[in-house]
Amino acid sequence: METKTEITFLGTGTSIGVPVIGCDCAVCTSDDPKNKRLRSSIHVTTPEVSLVVDTGPDFRQQCLREGIRHLDAALFTHAHSDHIMGFDDLRRFTVSDDEELEIHATEECLERLHAAFSYVFDGENRYRGYLKIAPHRIHGPFPVGDLTVTPLPVTHGKVETIGFLFSRGETRLFAYIPDAKVLSDEAKSLVRGIDLLILDGLQPEAHWTHLSIGEAVELIEELAVGQAWLTHFSCRVDYTTLGPTLPANISLAWDGLRLSC
Amino acid sequence: METKTEITFLGTGTSIGVPVIGCDCAVCTSDDPKNKRLRSSIHVTTPEVSLVVDTGPDFRQQCLREGIRHLDAALFTHAHSDHIMGFDDLRRFTVSDDEELEIHATEECLERLHAAFSYVFDGENRYRGYLKIAPHRIHGPFPVGDLTVTPLPVTHGKVETIGFLFSRGETRLFAYIPDAKVLSDEAKSLVRGIDLLILDGLQPEAHWTHLSIGEAVELIEELAVGQAWLTHFSCRVDYTTLGPTLPANISLAWDGLRLSC
Repeated sequence: METKTEITFLGTGTSIGVPVIGCDCAVCTSDDPKNKRLRSSIHVTTPEVSLVVDTGPDFRQQCLREGIRHLDAALFTHAHSDHIMGFDDLRRFTVSDDEELEIHATEECLERLHAAFSYVFDGENRYRGYLKIAPHRIHGPFPVGDLTVTPLPVTHGKVETIGFLFSRGETRLFAYIPDAKVLSDEAKSLVRGIDLLILDGLQPEAHWTHLSIGEAVELIEELAVGQAWLTHFSCRVDYTTLGPTLPANISLAWDGLRLSC
Repeated sequence: METKTEITFLGTGTSIGVPVIGCDCAVCTSDDPKNKRLRSSIHVTTPEVSLVVDTGPDFRQQCLREGIRHLDAALFTHAHSDHIMGFDDLRRFTVSDDEELEIHATEECLERLHAAFSYVFDGENRYRGYLKIAPHRIHGPFPVGDLTVTPLPVTHGKVETIGFLFSRGETRLFAYIPDAKVLSDEAKSLVRGIDLLILDGLQPEAHWTHLSIGEAVELIEELAVGQAWLTHFSCRVDYTTLGPTLPANISLAWDGLRLSC
Protein backbone atom coordinates (compact mmCIF):
# COMPACT_ATOMS: atom_id res chain seq x y z
CA MET A 1 0.00 0.00 0.00
CA GLU A 2 1.31 3.39 -0.94
CA THR A 3 1.66 5.91 1.88
CA LYS A 4 -0.25 9.03 1.08
CA THR A 5 0.69 12.57 1.90
CA GLU A 6 -2.11 15.11 1.65
CA ILE A 7 -1.63 18.84 1.34
CA THR A 8 -4.50 21.27 1.98
CA PHE A 9 -4.07 24.93 1.13
CA LEU A 10 -5.39 26.79 4.18
CA GLY A 11 -4.72 30.11 2.51
CA THR A 12 -3.20 31.41 -0.72
CA GLY A 13 -3.28 35.14 -0.06
CA THR A 14 -0.66 37.77 0.57
CA SER A 15 -0.22 39.72 3.83
CA ILE A 16 -3.53 41.60 3.61
CA GLY A 17 -5.62 38.78 2.10
CA VAL A 18 -8.13 39.05 -0.73
CA PRO A 19 -10.58 40.78 -0.70
CA VAL A 20 -8.47 43.65 0.57
CA ILE A 21 -10.18 45.96 3.09
CA GLY A 22 -11.43 49.02 1.20
CA CYS A 23 -10.50 47.73 -2.28
CA ASP A 24 -13.13 47.77 -5.06
CA CYS A 25 -11.09 46.08 -7.80
CA ALA A 26 -12.53 43.32 -9.98
CA VAL A 27 -10.83 40.55 -7.99
CA CYS A 28 -11.74 41.93 -4.55
CA THR A 29 -15.38 42.17 -5.64
CA SER A 30 -15.35 38.91 -7.63
CA ASP A 31 -17.88 36.17 -6.91
CA ASP A 32 -15.41 33.42 -7.83
CA PRO A 33 -14.58 31.63 -4.55
CA LYS A 34 -11.09 30.98 -5.98
CA ASN A 35 -10.52 34.72 -5.76
CA LYS A 36 -11.08 34.72 -1.97
CA ARG A 37 -7.74 34.29 -0.21
CA LEU A 38 -6.86 33.98 3.45
CA ARG A 39 -3.26 34.37 4.54
CA SER A 40 -0.93 31.69 3.11
CA SER A 41 -0.57 28.42 4.98
CA ILE A 42 -0.75 24.69 4.29
CA HIS A 43 -1.86 21.68 6.31
CA VAL A 44 0.06 18.46 5.64
CA THR A 45 -1.08 15.03 6.76
CA THR A 46 0.26 11.50 6.44
CA PRO A 47 -1.06 8.40 8.20
CA GLU A 48 1.44 9.24 10.97
CA VAL A 49 1.51 12.99 11.29
CA SER A 50 -0.52 16.20 10.99
CA LEU A 51 1.37 19.49 10.69
CA VAL A 52 0.76 23.05 9.63
CA VAL A 53 3.15 25.49 7.97
CA ASP A 54 2.64 29.02 9.35
CA THR A 55 -0.23 30.32 11.47
CA GLY A 56 -1.34 33.71 10.21
CA PRO A 57 -4.22 35.67 11.73
CA ASP A 58 -6.75 33.54 9.81
CA PHE A 59 -5.57 30.29 11.41
CA ARG A 60 -8.70 29.74 13.53
CA GLN A 61 -11.12 30.13 10.63
CA GLN A 62 -8.87 27.96 8.45
CA CYS A 63 -8.98 25.16 11.04
CA LEU A 64 -12.76 25.45 11.29
CA ARG A 65 -13.20 25.47 7.51
CA GLU A 66 -11.03 22.38 7.02
CA GLY A 67 -12.14 20.56 10.16
CA ILE A 68 -8.61 20.26 11.58
CA ARG A 69 -8.87 18.60 15.00
CA HIS A 70 -5.36 17.32 15.59
CA LEU A 71 -1.86 18.72 15.06
CA ASP A 72 1.54 17.30 15.97
CA ALA A 73 3.67 20.19 14.80
CA ALA A 74 3.70 23.75 13.50
CA LEU A 75 6.51 24.85 11.18
CA PHE A 76 7.30 28.47 10.41
CA THR A 77 8.84 29.95 7.28
CA HIS A 78 9.44 33.37 8.86
CA ALA A 79 8.01 35.75 11.44
CA HIS A 80 6.12 38.29 9.34
CA SER A 81 2.72 39.08 10.84
CA ASP A 82 0.76 37.32 8.10
CA HIS A 83 2.55 34.08 9.04
CA ILE A 84 2.55 34.11 12.85
CA MET A 85 -0.25 36.17 14.38
CA GLY A 86 -2.62 33.20 14.75
CA PHE A 87 -0.04 31.39 16.90
CA ASP A 88 -2.15 31.54 20.07
CA ASP A 89 -4.98 29.66 18.37
CA LEU A 90 -2.71 26.60 18.35
CA ARG A 91 -3.83 26.27 21.99
CA ARG A 92 -6.74 24.15 20.81
CA PHE A 93 -4.25 21.42 19.89
CA THR A 94 -2.77 21.15 23.40
CA VAL A 95 -5.92 21.17 25.47
CA SER A 96 -5.06 18.50 28.04
CA ASP A 97 -2.32 19.01 30.62
CA ASP A 98 0.22 16.68 29.02
CA GLU A 99 -0.13 17.64 25.37
CA GLU A 100 2.68 19.60 23.77
CA LEU A 101 3.04 20.88 20.23
CA GLU A 102 6.33 20.75 18.33
CA ILE A 103 7.28 24.19 17.01
CA HIS A 104 9.98 24.29 14.32
CA ALA A 105 11.47 27.63 13.27
CA THR A 106 14.82 29.33 12.76
CA GLU A 107 16.43 30.96 15.77
CA GLU A 108 15.44 34.43 14.54
CA CYS A 109 11.85 33.34 13.98
CA LEU A 110 11.67 31.71 17.44
CA GLU A 111 12.90 34.99 18.94
CA ARG A 112 10.18 36.94 17.16
CA LEU A 113 7.54 34.42 18.24
CA HIS A 114 8.86 34.70 21.79
CA ALA A 115 8.65 38.51 21.67
CA ALA A 116 5.04 38.43 20.46
CA PHE A 117 3.83 35.48 22.57
CA SER A 118 6.10 35.65 25.61
CA TYR A 119 3.53 33.95 27.88
CA VAL A 120 3.80 30.80 25.76
CA PHE A 121 7.62 30.68 25.69
CA ASP A 122 8.14 31.71 29.32
CA GLY A 123 6.65 28.44 30.50
CA GLU A 124 3.87 30.23 32.37
CA ASN A 125 0.29 29.07 31.84
CA ARG A 126 1.23 25.45 31.18
CA TYR A 127 -2.19 24.29 32.23
CA ARG A 128 -5.33 22.94 30.66
CA GLY A 129 -6.55 24.89 27.65
CA TYR A 130 -3.34 26.87 27.10
CA LEU A 131 -0.75 26.45 24.38
CA LYS A 132 2.13 24.25 25.52
CA ILE A 133 5.04 23.99 23.12
CA ALA A 134 8.28 22.15 22.52
CA PRO A 135 10.30 24.66 20.47
CA HIS A 136 12.93 23.29 18.07
CA ARG A 137 15.49 25.50 16.36
CA ILE A 138 15.88 24.62 12.70
CA HIS A 139 19.52 24.24 11.69
CA GLY A 140 19.24 21.48 9.09
CA PRO A 141 16.93 18.61 8.13
CA PHE A 142 14.64 17.38 10.92
CA PRO A 143 12.08 14.60 11.33
CA VAL A 144 8.36 15.19 11.89
CA GLY A 145 6.62 11.82 12.18
CA ASP A 146 7.40 9.81 9.07
CA LEU A 147 8.54 12.90 7.16
CA THR A 148 11.94 14.50 6.87
CA VAL A 149 11.79 18.26 6.49
CA THR A 150 14.71 20.16 4.98
CA PRO A 151 14.86 23.97 5.22
CA LEU A 152 15.29 25.80 1.91
CA PRO A 153 17.10 29.12 2.40
CA VAL A 154 15.64 31.94 0.29
CA THR A 155 15.63 35.73 0.40
CA HIS A 156 12.38 37.65 0.70
CA GLY A 157 13.26 41.32 0.26
CA LYS A 158 15.55 42.30 3.13
CA VAL A 159 14.68 39.13 5.04
CA GLU A 160 16.38 35.73 4.96
CA THR A 161 13.60 33.19 5.24
CA ILE A 162 13.04 29.52 4.50
CA GLY A 163 10.83 27.21 2.51
CA PHE A 164 10.53 23.50 3.29
CA LEU A 165 11.31 20.33 1.36
CA PHE A 166 9.22 17.39 2.58
CA SER A 167 10.68 13.90 2.01
CA ARG A 168 9.99 10.37 3.14
CA GLY A 169 13.18 8.36 3.31
CA GLU A 170 15.11 9.15 0.14
CA THR A 171 11.96 10.21 -1.74
CA ARG A 172 11.33 13.91 -2.21
CA LEU A 173 7.58 14.48 -1.92
CA PHE A 174 7.14 18.22 -2.42
CA ALA A 175 8.55 21.62 -1.56
CA TYR A 176 6.72 24.69 -0.21
CA ILE A 177 8.23 28.16 -0.68
CA PRO A 178 5.54 30.78 -0.07
CA ASP A 179 7.63 33.93 0.38
CA ALA A 180 10.68 34.35 -1.81
CA LYS A 181 12.28 36.72 -4.26
CA VAL A 182 15.50 34.74 -4.78
CA LEU A 183 16.20 31.05 -4.11
CA SER A 184 19.66 30.27 -2.75
CA ASP A 185 21.85 27.88 -4.76
CA GLU A 186 21.31 25.35 -1.95
CA ALA A 187 17.51 25.66 -2.24
CA LYS A 188 17.68 25.38 -6.04
CA SER A 189 19.81 22.28 -5.85
CA LEU A 190 17.44 20.67 -3.33
CA VAL A 191 14.31 21.20 -5.44
CA ARG A 192 15.76 20.78 -8.97
CA GLY A 193 13.74 18.18 -10.88
CA ILE A 194 11.24 17.70 -8.03
CA ASP A 195 7.77 16.36 -8.92
CA LEU A 196 5.78 18.94 -6.97
CA LEU A 197 6.71 22.50 -6.04
CA ILE A 198 4.49 25.13 -4.38
CA LEU A 199 6.00 28.55 -5.01
CA ASP A 200 5.41 32.24 -4.33
CA GLY A 201 3.89 34.00 -7.38
CA LEU A 202 2.59 37.23 -5.89
CA GLN A 203 1.18 38.96 -8.97
CA PRO A 204 1.93 39.64 -12.63
CA GLU A 205 3.74 42.90 -11.76
CA ALA A 206 7.30 42.89 -10.42
CA HIS A 207 7.72 43.27 -6.64
CA TRP A 208 10.91 43.70 -4.66
CA THR A 209 10.19 41.07 -2.00
CA HIS A 210 8.22 38.44 -3.95
CA LEU A 211 8.55 36.51 -7.20
CA SER A 212 6.18 37.80 -9.85
CA ILE A 213 4.15 35.26 -11.81
CA GLY A 214 6.58 35.62 -14.74
CA GLU A 215 9.66 35.19 -12.52
CA ALA A 216 8.10 32.16 -10.86
CA VAL A 217 7.29 30.58 -14.25
CA GLU A 218 10.87 31.17 -15.42
CA LEU A 219 12.30 29.67 -12.23
CA ILE A 220 10.02 26.63 -12.44
CA GLU A 221 11.23 26.01 -16.01
CA GLU A 222 14.88 26.51 -14.99
CA LEU A 223 14.43 23.97 -12.19
CA ALA A 224 12.71 21.40 -14.44
CA VAL A 225 9.90 20.92 -11.92
CA GLY A 226 7.20 18.36 -12.72
CA GLN A 227 4.07 20.10 -11.47
CA ALA A 228 4.06 23.53 -9.86
CA TRP A 229 1.36 25.41 -7.97
CA LEU A 230 1.70 29.14 -7.35
CA THR A 231 0.49 30.74 -4.11
CA HIS A 232 0.64 33.91 -1.92
CA PHE A 233 -1.37 36.06 -4.33
CA SER A 234 -2.34 39.71 -4.16
CA CYS A 235 -5.59 40.97 -5.68
CA ARG A 236 -3.74 41.53 -8.96
CA VAL A 237 -4.21 37.81 -9.59
CA ASP A 238 -7.60 36.96 -11.11
CA TYR A 239 -7.97 33.20 -10.95
CA THR A 240 -10.52 33.16 -13.76
CA THR A 241 -8.52 35.04 -16.37
CA LEU A 242 -4.89 34.43 -15.37
CA GLY A 243 -5.07 30.69 -14.70
CA PRO A 244 -5.61 29.62 -18.32
CA THR A 245 -2.60 31.63 -19.58
CA LEU A 246 -0.01 29.58 -17.66
CA PRO A 247 2.08 26.67 -19.01
CA ALA A 248 0.42 23.24 -18.68
CA ASN A 249 2.48 22.18 -15.65
CA ILE A 250 1.88 25.40 -13.67
CA SER A 251 -1.38 26.26 -11.91
CA LEU A 252 -2.72 28.85 -9.50
CA ALA A 253 -3.61 27.36 -6.12
CA TRP A 254 -6.75 28.35 -4.22
CA ASP A 255 -7.96 28.21 -0.63
CA GLY A 256 -9.19 24.69 0.10
CA LEU A 257 -7.26 23.01 -2.74
CA ARG A 258 -6.10 19.50 -1.80
CA LEU A 259 -3.17 17.71 -3.38
CA SER A 260 -1.88 14.19 -2.80
CA CYS A 261 1.63 12.91 -3.30
CA MET B 1 -30.43 67.76 15.19
CA GLU B 2 -29.26 65.15 17.60
CA THR B 3 -25.73 63.85 17.13
CA LYS B 4 -25.76 60.12 16.77
CA THR B 5 -23.18 57.66 18.03
CA GLU B 6 -23.34 54.20 16.52
CA ILE B 7 -21.80 51.10 18.05
CA THR B 8 -21.29 47.93 16.00
CA PHE B 9 -20.25 44.72 17.72
CA LEU B 10 -17.43 43.34 15.57
CA GLY B 11 -17.12 40.31 17.81
CA THR B 12 -18.64 39.03 21.06
CA GLY B 13 -16.50 35.93 21.62
CA THR B 14 -13.89 34.96 24.14
CA SER B 15 -10.21 34.33 23.34
CA ILE B 16 -10.81 31.21 21.22
CA GLY B 17 -14.05 32.34 19.55
CA VAL B 18 -17.20 30.29 18.98
CA PRO B 19 -17.33 27.74 17.42
CA VAL B 20 -14.26 26.51 19.24
CA ILE B 21 -11.82 24.43 17.15
CA GLY B 22 -12.51 20.76 17.87
CA CYS B 23 -15.58 21.36 20.08
CA ASP B 24 -18.82 19.48 19.34
CA CYS B 25 -21.04 21.09 21.98
CA ALA B 26 -24.57 22.29 21.18
CA VAL B 27 -23.51 25.93 20.85
CA CYS B 28 -20.41 25.24 18.71
CA THR B 29 -22.57 23.18 16.32
CA SER B 30 -25.59 25.50 16.53
CA ASP B 31 -27.12 26.97 13.35
CA ASP B 32 -28.16 30.16 15.13
CA PRO B 33 -25.92 32.91 13.69
CA LYS B 34 -26.10 34.62 17.11
CA ASN B 35 -24.08 31.68 18.46
CA LYS B 36 -21.16 32.45 16.08
CA ARG B 37 -18.67 34.71 17.81
CA LEU B 38 -15.47 36.32 16.60
CA ARG B 39 -13.07 37.80 19.11
CA SER B 40 -14.54 40.76 21.06
CA SER B 41 -14.27 44.22 19.55
CA ILE B 42 -16.51 47.20 18.80
CA HIS B 43 -16.57 49.83 16.08
CA VAL B 44 -17.80 53.27 17.16
CA THR B 45 -18.78 56.03 14.76
CA THR B 46 -20.07 59.57 15.11
CA PRO B 47 -20.46 62.15 12.32
CA GLU B 48 -16.89 63.22 13.19
CA VAL B 49 -14.98 60.09 14.06
CA SER B 50 -14.59 56.36 13.38
CA LEU B 51 -12.73 54.26 15.94
CA VAL B 52 -12.29 50.65 16.89
CA VAL B 53 -11.71 49.15 20.34
CA ASP B 54 -9.24 46.23 20.13
CA THR B 55 -8.00 44.42 17.03
CA GLY B 56 -7.97 40.69 17.62
CA PRO B 57 -6.95 38.14 15.00
CA ASP B 58 -10.38 38.39 13.34
CA PHE B 59 -10.04 42.11 12.67
CA ARG B 60 -9.70 41.79 8.88
CA GLN B 61 -12.81 39.65 8.46
CA GLN B 62 -14.71 41.93 10.86
CA CYS B 63 -13.84 44.98 8.72
CA LEU B 64 -14.91 43.15 5.56
CA ARG B 65 -18.17 41.96 7.13
CA GLU B 66 -19.10 45.45 8.37
CA GLY B 67 -17.72 47.37 5.38
CA ILE B 68 -15.37 49.49 7.49
CA ARG B 69 -13.36 51.71 5.12
CA HIS B 70 -12.14 54.49 7.36
CA LEU B 71 -10.67 54.66 10.86
CA ASP B 72 -9.27 57.59 12.82
CA ALA B 73 -8.19 55.72 15.92
CA ALA B 74 -7.71 52.31 17.52
CA LEU B 75 -8.10 51.98 21.30
CA PHE B 76 -6.88 48.99 23.28
CA THR B 77 -8.23 47.58 26.52
CA HIS B 78 -5.23 45.29 27.10
CA ALA B 79 -2.62 43.28 25.23
CA HIS B 80 -3.94 39.73 25.39
CA SER B 81 -3.62 37.96 22.04
CA ASP B 82 -7.36 37.92 21.35
CA HIS B 83 -7.34 41.73 21.53
CA ILE B 84 -4.20 42.71 19.60
CA MET B 85 -3.09 40.13 17.05
CA GLY B 86 -4.94 41.74 14.14
CA PHE B 87 -3.00 44.99 14.70
CA ASP B 88 -1.11 44.77 11.40
CA ASP B 89 -4.38 44.73 9.45
CA LEU B 90 -4.88 48.33 10.55
CA ARG B 91 -2.45 49.09 7.68
CA ARG B 92 -5.41 49.35 5.34
CA PHE B 93 -6.42 52.54 7.15
CA THR B 94 -3.11 54.33 6.52
CA VAL B 95 -2.56 53.50 2.87
CA SER B 96 -1.29 56.84 1.60
CA ASP B 97 2.06 58.27 2.67
CA ASP B 98 0.68 60.97 4.95
CA GLU B 99 -2.03 59.01 6.77
CA GLU B 100 -1.45 58.13 10.41
CA LEU B 101 -3.68 56.25 12.82
CA GLU B 102 -4.07 57.30 16.47
CA ILE B 103 -3.30 54.40 18.80
CA HIS B 104 -4.48 54.78 22.42
CA ALA B 105 -3.34 52.27 25.03
CA THR B 106 -1.77 52.11 28.47
CA GLU B 107 2.00 52.20 28.71
CA GLU B 108 2.12 48.45 29.40
CA CYS B 109 -0.14 47.69 26.47
CA LEU B 110 1.93 49.91 24.14
CA GLU B 111 5.03 48.00 25.24
CA ARG B 112 3.40 44.67 24.41
CA LEU B 113 2.22 45.99 21.04
CA HIS B 114 5.75 47.24 20.39
CA ALA B 115 7.21 43.83 21.26
CA ALA B 116 4.86 42.03 18.89
CA PHE B 117 4.86 44.60 16.05
CA SER B 118 8.27 46.22 16.43
CA TYR B 119 8.46 47.18 12.73
CA VAL B 120 5.44 49.46 13.21
CA PHE B 121 6.75 51.17 16.35
CA ASP B 122 10.37 51.46 15.22
CA GLY B 123 9.37 53.97 12.55
CA GLU B 124 10.66 51.68 9.77
CA ASN B 125 8.39 51.03 6.78
CA ARG B 126 6.62 54.38 6.97
CA TYR B 127 5.72 54.19 3.31
CA ARG B 128 2.66 53.57 1.17
CA GLY B 129 0.58 50.59 2.23
CA TYR B 130 2.19 50.12 5.65
CA LEU B 131 0.75 50.89 9.04
CA LYS B 132 1.80 54.31 10.27
CA ILE B 133 0.80 55.18 13.80
CA ALA B 134 0.70 58.02 16.29
CA PRO B 135 0.86 56.18 19.65
CA HIS B 136 -0.72 57.89 22.67
CA ARG B 137 -0.22 56.64 26.20
CA ILE B 138 -3.46 56.62 28.17
CA HIS B 139 -3.11 58.27 31.57
CA GLY B 140 -6.53 59.87 31.95
CA PRO B 141 -9.45 61.08 29.79
CA PHE B 142 -8.51 61.87 26.18
CA PRO B 143 -10.35 63.28 23.15
CA VAL B 144 -11.00 61.30 19.95
CA GLY B 145 -12.85 63.54 17.51
CA ASP B 146 -15.99 64.82 19.20
CA LEU B 147 -15.80 62.14 21.90
CA THR B 148 -14.09 62.15 25.27
CA VAL B 149 -12.83 58.75 26.31
CA THR B 150 -12.17 57.97 29.97
CA PRO B 151 -10.28 54.81 30.96
CA LEU B 152 -12.05 52.56 33.46
CA PRO B 153 -9.53 50.59 35.57
CA VAL B 154 -10.58 46.98 36.15
CA THR B 155 -8.86 43.73 37.07
CA HIS B 156 -9.00 40.74 34.75
CA GLY B 157 -7.44 37.84 36.64
CA LYS B 158 -3.80 38.74 37.33
CA VAL B 159 -3.93 41.59 34.82
CA GLU B 160 -4.84 45.23 35.38
CA THR B 161 -6.72 46.31 32.30
CA ILE B 162 -9.13 49.04 31.27
CA GLY B 163 -12.58 49.55 29.86
CA PHE B 164 -13.67 52.82 28.28
CA LEU B 165 -16.35 55.41 29.06
CA PHE B 166 -17.39 57.37 25.96
CA SER B 167 -18.82 60.86 26.54
CA ARG B 168 -19.68 63.91 24.49
CA GLY B 169 -19.19 67.07 26.50
CA GLU B 170 -20.77 66.41 29.90
CA THR B 171 -23.02 63.63 28.54
CA ARG B 172 -22.05 60.04 29.22
CA LEU B 173 -22.95 58.00 26.12
CA PHE B 174 -21.91 54.45 27.01
CA ALA B 175 -19.20 52.34 28.61
CA TYR B 176 -17.45 49.25 27.21
CA ILE B 177 -15.78 46.79 29.59
CA PRO B 178 -15.15 43.51 27.74
CA ASP B 179 -12.62 41.81 30.06
CA ALA B 180 -13.11 42.20 33.78
CA LYS B 181 -13.50 40.23 36.95
CA VAL B 182 -13.61 43.20 39.34
CA LEU B 183 -14.37 46.84 38.63
CA SER B 184 -12.31 49.38 40.59
CA ASP B 185 -14.16 51.87 42.77
CA GLU B 186 -13.17 54.53 40.26
CA ALA B 187 -14.70 52.54 37.37
CA LYS B 188 -17.88 51.89 39.36
CA SER B 189 -18.25 55.54 40.22
CA LEU B 190 -17.75 56.56 36.56
CA VAL B 191 -20.43 54.20 35.20
CA ARG B 192 -22.97 54.28 38.06
CA GLY B 193 -26.42 55.16 36.70
CA ILE B 194 -25.22 55.21 33.07
CA ASP B 195 -27.82 54.65 30.32
CA LEU B 196 -25.85 52.06 28.37
CA LEU B 197 -23.18 49.62 29.59
CA ILE B 198 -21.51 46.83 27.61
CA LEU B 199 -19.99 44.37 30.05
CA ASP B 200 -18.05 41.09 30.20
CA GLY B 201 -20.35 38.13 30.94
CA LEU B 202 -18.23 35.15 29.95
CA GLN B 203 -20.54 32.26 30.81
CA PRO B 204 -22.98 31.03 33.47
CA GLU B 205 -20.17 29.23 35.33
CA ALA B 206 -17.74 31.13 37.58
CA HIS B 207 -14.32 31.97 36.10
CA TRP B 208 -11.32 33.50 37.83
CA THR B 209 -10.54 36.16 35.19
CA HIS B 210 -14.01 37.05 33.90
CA LEU B 211 -17.39 38.02 35.32
CA SER B 212 -19.89 35.20 35.05
CA ILE B 213 -23.35 36.00 33.73
CA GLY B 214 -24.71 35.99 37.29
CA GLU B 215 -21.93 38.25 38.59
CA ALA B 216 -22.45 40.63 35.67
CA VAL B 217 -26.21 40.78 36.32
CA GLU B 218 -25.59 41.51 40.02
CA LEU B 219 -23.09 44.25 39.19
CA ILE B 220 -25.43 45.84 36.63
CA GLU B 221 -28.17 45.97 39.27
CA GLU B 222 -25.77 47.39 41.88
CA LEU B 223 -24.73 50.11 39.43
CA ALA B 224 -28.33 51.00 38.48
CA VAL B 225 -27.52 50.87 34.78
CA GLY B 226 -30.28 51.71 32.30
CA GLN B 227 -29.68 49.15 29.56
CA ALA B 228 -26.86 46.60 29.62
CA TRP B 229 -25.49 44.30 26.94
CA LEU B 230 -23.26 41.39 27.87
CA THR B 231 -20.34 40.32 25.64
CA HIS B 232 -17.12 38.21 25.47
CA PHE B 233 -18.92 34.86 25.60
CA SER B 234 -17.56 31.34 25.65
CA CYS B 235 -19.47 28.44 24.09
CA ARG B 236 -21.24 27.91 27.42
CA VAL B 237 -23.54 30.76 26.39
CA ASP B 238 -26.41 29.63 24.15
CA TYR B 239 -28.05 32.75 22.78
CA THR B 240 -31.31 30.97 22.10
CA THR B 241 -31.90 29.53 25.56
CA LEU B 242 -29.99 31.88 27.89
CA GLY B 243 -31.11 35.21 26.41
CA PRO B 244 -34.77 34.97 27.54
CA THR B 245 -33.81 34.21 31.17
CA LEU B 246 -32.17 37.60 31.79
CA PRO B 247 -33.75 40.66 33.45
CA ALA B 248 -35.60 42.99 31.03
CA ASN B 249 -32.80 45.58 30.91
CA ILE B 250 -30.00 43.06 30.25
CA SER B 251 -29.38 41.35 26.88
CA LEU B 252 -26.79 39.16 25.24
CA ALA B 253 -24.97 40.94 22.41
CA TRP B 254 -24.15 39.23 19.12
CA ASP B 255 -21.71 39.76 16.27
CA GLY B 256 -23.10 42.45 14.00
CA LEU B 257 -25.44 43.99 16.57
CA ARG B 258 -25.76 47.77 16.13
CA LEU B 259 -26.74 50.17 18.88
CA SER B 260 -27.29 53.92 18.73
CA CYS B 261 -26.97 56.43 21.53
